[in-house]
Amino acid sequence: MKNILSLKKKPLRAMGCHSPLTAQIVKESGFDAVWLSGLEVSTSFGVPDANFISPKQMFDLTNSISSVVEIPIIVDMDNGYGDHNNAAYAVKQFEKNGASAVCIEDKKFPKTNSFFEKGQRLETIDDFSKKIIAMAKAKKEKEFKIIARTETLIAGGTHEEALQRTKSYVNSGADMILIHSKSDSPEEVKKFVRDWSYKEIPLVIVPTTYYTFSYQEILNYEKIKLVIYANHGIRSQVSILRKNLPKIIQSGSTEILENNISKIKDLFKLQGLDKLNKL
Amino acid sequence: MKNILSLKKKPLRAMGCHSPLTAQIVKESGFDAVWLSGLEVSTSFGVPDANFISPKQMFDLTNSISSVVEIPIIVDMDNGYGDHNNAAYAVKQFEKNGASAVCIEDKKFPKTNSFFEKGQRLETIDDFSKKIIAMAKAKKEKEFKIIARTETLIAGGTHEEALQRTKSYVNSGADMILIHSKSDSPEEVKKFVRDWSYKEIPLVIVPTTYYTFSYQEILNYEKIKLVIYANHGIRSQVSILRKNLPKIIQSGSTEILENNISKIKDLFKLQGLDKLNKL
Amino acid sequence: MKNILSLKKKPLRAMGCHSPLTAQIVKESGFDAVWLSGLEVSTSFGVPDANFISPKQMFDLTNSISSVVEIPIIVDMDNGYGDHNNAAYAVKQFEKNGASAVCIEDKKFPKTNSFFEKGQRLETIDDFSKKIIAMAKAKKEKEFKIIARTETLIAGGTHEEALQRTKSYVNSGADMILIHSKSDSPEEVKKFVRDWSYKEIPLVIVPTTYYTFSYQEILNYEKIKLVIYANHGIRSQVSILRKNLPKIIQSGSTEILENNISKIKDLFKLQGLDKLNKL
Amino acid sequence: MKNILSLKKKPLRAMGCHSPLTAQIVKESGFDAVWLSGLEVSTSFGVPDANFISPKQMFDLTNSISSVVEIPIIVDMDNGYGDHNNAAYAVKQFEKNGASAVCIEDKKFPKTNSFFEKGQRLETIDDFSKKIIAMAKAKKEKEFKIIARTETLIAGGTHEEALQRTKSYVNSGADMILIHSKSDSPEEVKKFVRDWSYKEIPLVIVPTTYYTFSYQEILNYEKIKLVIYANHGIRSQVSILRKNLPKIIQSGSTEILENNISKIKDLFKLQGLDKLNKL
Repeated sequence: MKNILSLKKKPLRAMGCHSPLTAQIVKESGFDAVWLSGLEVSTSFGVPDANFISPKQMFDLTNSISSVVEIPIIVDMDNGYGDHNNAAYAVKQFEKNGASAVCIEDKKFPKTNSFFEKGQRLETIDDFSKKIIAMAKAKKEKEFKIIARTETLIAGGTHEEALQRTKSYVNSGADMILIHSKSDSPEEVKKFVRDWSYKEIPLVIVPTTYYTFSYQEILNYEKIKLVIYANHGIRSQVSILRKNLPKIIQSGSTEILENNISKIKDLFKLQGLDKLNKL
Repeated sequence: MKNILSLKKKPLRAMGCHSPLTAQIVKESGFDAVWLSGLEVSTSFGVPDANFISPKQMFDLTNSISSVVEIPIIVDMDNGYGDHNNAAYAVKQFEKNGASAVCIEDKKFPKTNSFFEKGQRLETIDDFSKKIIAMAKAKKEKEFKIIARTETLIAGGTHEEALQRTKSYVNSGADMILIHSKSDSPEEVKKFVRDWSYKEIPLVIVPTTYYTFSYQEILNYEKIKLVIYANHGIRSQVSILRKNLPKIIQSGSTEILENNISKIKDLFKLQGLDKLNKL
Repeated sequence: MKNILSLKKKPLRAMGCHSPLTAQIVKESGFDAVWLSGLEVSTSFGVPDANFISPKQMFDLTNSISSVVEIPIIVDMDNGYGDHNNAAYAVKQFEKNGASAVCIEDKKFPKTNSFFEKGQRLETIDDFSKKIIAMAKAKKEKEFKIIARTETLIAGGTHEEALQRTKSYVNSGADMILIHSKSDSPEEVKKFVRDWSYKEIPLVIVPTTYYTFSYQEILNYEKIKLVIYANHGIRSQVSILRKNLPKIIQSGSTEILENNISKIKDLFKLQGLDKLNKL
Repeated sequence: MKNILSLKKKPLRAMGCHSPLTAQIVKESGFDAVWLSGLEVSTSFGVPDANFISPKQMFDLTNSISSVVEIPIIVDMDNGYGDHNNAAYAVKQFEKNGASAVCIEDKKFPKTNSFFEKGQRLETIDDFSKKIIAMAKAKKEKEFKIIARTETLIAGGTHEEALQRTKSYVNSGADMILIHSKSDSPEEVKKFVRDWSYKEIPLVIVPTTYYTFSYQEILNYEKIKLVIYANHGIRSQVSILRKNLPKIIQSGSTEILENNISKIKDLFKLQGLDKLNKL
């Protein structure tokens, strides 16, 4: 079990992935952890990010990824797949299958993605706190971390509500707090960080829309311990496929791509084919 | 069931994929079919392309892909996962899960990827023909096609042996023949096509190494009915991840990527999130 | 697609199962259909019948079962795994994987088993009707049937509420209505059947606690078209294992069982091992 | 990791299972370990015991079983799913998913069940020894045990060949040797045990056909450390279903079974439903 909080002094950087392969490249690119992203996994299966992916599929993916990368896996477990018992069950399965941390968000089941322009409905503090309590009780190793993510600001709630909710989550047993925002500016997140008073409980941010908040600047906010770049991998992949594949049709061959794409032997290396035992 | 042979007059073009998402982009890029590639799937799971991926995983992927794309799915079923009974079972499962065709290669179990520089061992004609016979008997719909792929030229065999083997496969019930080559030049493939005498049995080619053989030129070879571009999608994806992800570490933010990658709303569209029933 | 409503004049009898094997024995015992029971599947995995089993596991089981039995599969899809969109998605997957019908119950997510002595919470009529509407729209074949199951009587509701709810479900698109009861007497079910006025919409019953309501007597209630014996298979299996396995420890060998259990060749026959192609 | 060799002085008794539920009842019946039987799993899926079940399905089952029982899981990994590299990969996956030991047999791929009356083909000593070497290297914990099973006697080989083969397997790294027999008498097994000279390498037997060899008598053979009762659970289950289910059809109700089968509350207990967190 890798304890994501003991890895290093500076804020960790985690990068979104949705498969063993994408996790491998996250690792080799220098990130500290992989973020098994619900948005990425949903997209890779071509289904809405609205609890269409089964928990079993996420357990399996965690298992497959932990078979090939050694950096910590932080799992996006959405809103916990049901009530506190379902959330506790998921914690056991994720820990068993090789995750180092899970992140649960305070949205009602079924959820919709935070960037989707539909009404986002929050759970009551009480219901969500029950989930955290049950999850904290379900985990086996102390090193396994539970990240409680509030969608208060996403759902139109106030700064004060976000603080109130997250403090309650800490009291229920959360190890870290993720303050989510879809503002173009980092100001609401910075304000939350400044006003965060539980010093021993580190904060997590996901600068997707407020990408101008650079790592250099984040270093000034000591309470932030984890930065998640959530989905830029799959967005790069969709983009390049849409650019490259039509060229094969248009030009009539793959010649035009040969110098710009990985070689087959690069794939073999990623597969570990060359490490097979010759005997 | 889509009959891949009745789709159009010109040679079909199939493109490699390994997931519902990649299949979706293959379709929108204008290809006629998806090739569920063993090499791509192995790579996406980070395991050697040497029968490490279970048949069950391929059945599942076929099922997931056929849930989201409507163009035909041609499955790379390697060497059939065992003997003729295992191959026949696989045919039933692939057909049931939405494939339109399968391709089986005449290598011994367990296989290694054709581009791997290790000894490639061919099955006896007799053993492989048994597989074809059992597969032809196992399929339910006439429209479902069995592609027999010979690795003769890959394994160092002769032109004559390739012809002899594939004729035997046709006599055993193969609907199409794939002549595989890893030569940099298309000459050995062209020669095979010219000497192919079973006019009613179409040929399939995979111009990976001999990519100079353009579609425009292939049009002159009427016996070729299917061209498979096997793995350029995943090679594009590996390449772009290796280029983009380190930039986030280096530059300290994702700002540098924002204009060059797909938007989150593009992912939502691929997921079909906007088609959810509002009620 | 087998249309369970056109199979025969008399009420169909479905028997609970949780695996291809148990489905095979249901079929050979003379039942008309298999009931892929949530209670049985949960039990077979050793997890609570409270939405711990993932929808993906149910899709997979449907697929495996439809590979080996030809009688219709009626799937217990609990409360639909989320909202109306999740329920609609499940319908598509179950139909694709070989089910002939699904049954959805009007309990809130996450559910608990109807026979569990905890508070059973019903969904609002409006929310549940949305599910039925979306499910009816999602199914592909007219022959695929949607069974709406009301837990009104289980949850302490009245006869009138049960009628009101189920009529609303019919107006939303349900093909059949399951009136559930955990009374020891069939009276409340009989009363519902007598007062059911939508003659073209058949009724379904599950005589688990009111087992005294025999098939001979049910024949007098023409509106009942399907009788589900939900879980007596797995209860038989648990019982016999608990009886037989300790005997092996106690007696020191399996000799004591040899004449009372199936032979290995019976297993081979169920596997279809003797039908393998000899070639 | 439970070290099956350090559990107790007397020979361990393992009992066949194919699911978490059946494993639970094996445990509560007093057995020391569960045997995840290829024959039982194949039967439960209704497919031939001839490498139709994918390794991935066995990894998954190991994972599900180790989630609910705490006694050691010994996995029947057939002939290793391919060559030495496939076998080594399987070892990693089984260990990761909670097995304490695996058993591999020296039959050619694809295999057929040992009790099937078709020709059983053995692998060469050299090829099988490579598997053992690769497997021993692949395992992570010293406590994880590799059982090499010889089918020499099943395939018509001699006593001497069995000894020669198994000694080679020990030299390659096997931790235990399973001597398989389908004789009605235990004599050939007893003879093997008597002549076994590698005292530090314990023996394993499977008294399916020679069930007269009782545990009391086995105690006299100190080299035998593990006795596997391989498939009497599923044979009991098939038998009872075939007896009980037709009675429901014949008698018109389940009344006739009510006193002879487990109660629903017994199922709830096995599910752990009563241990759910009330909060």
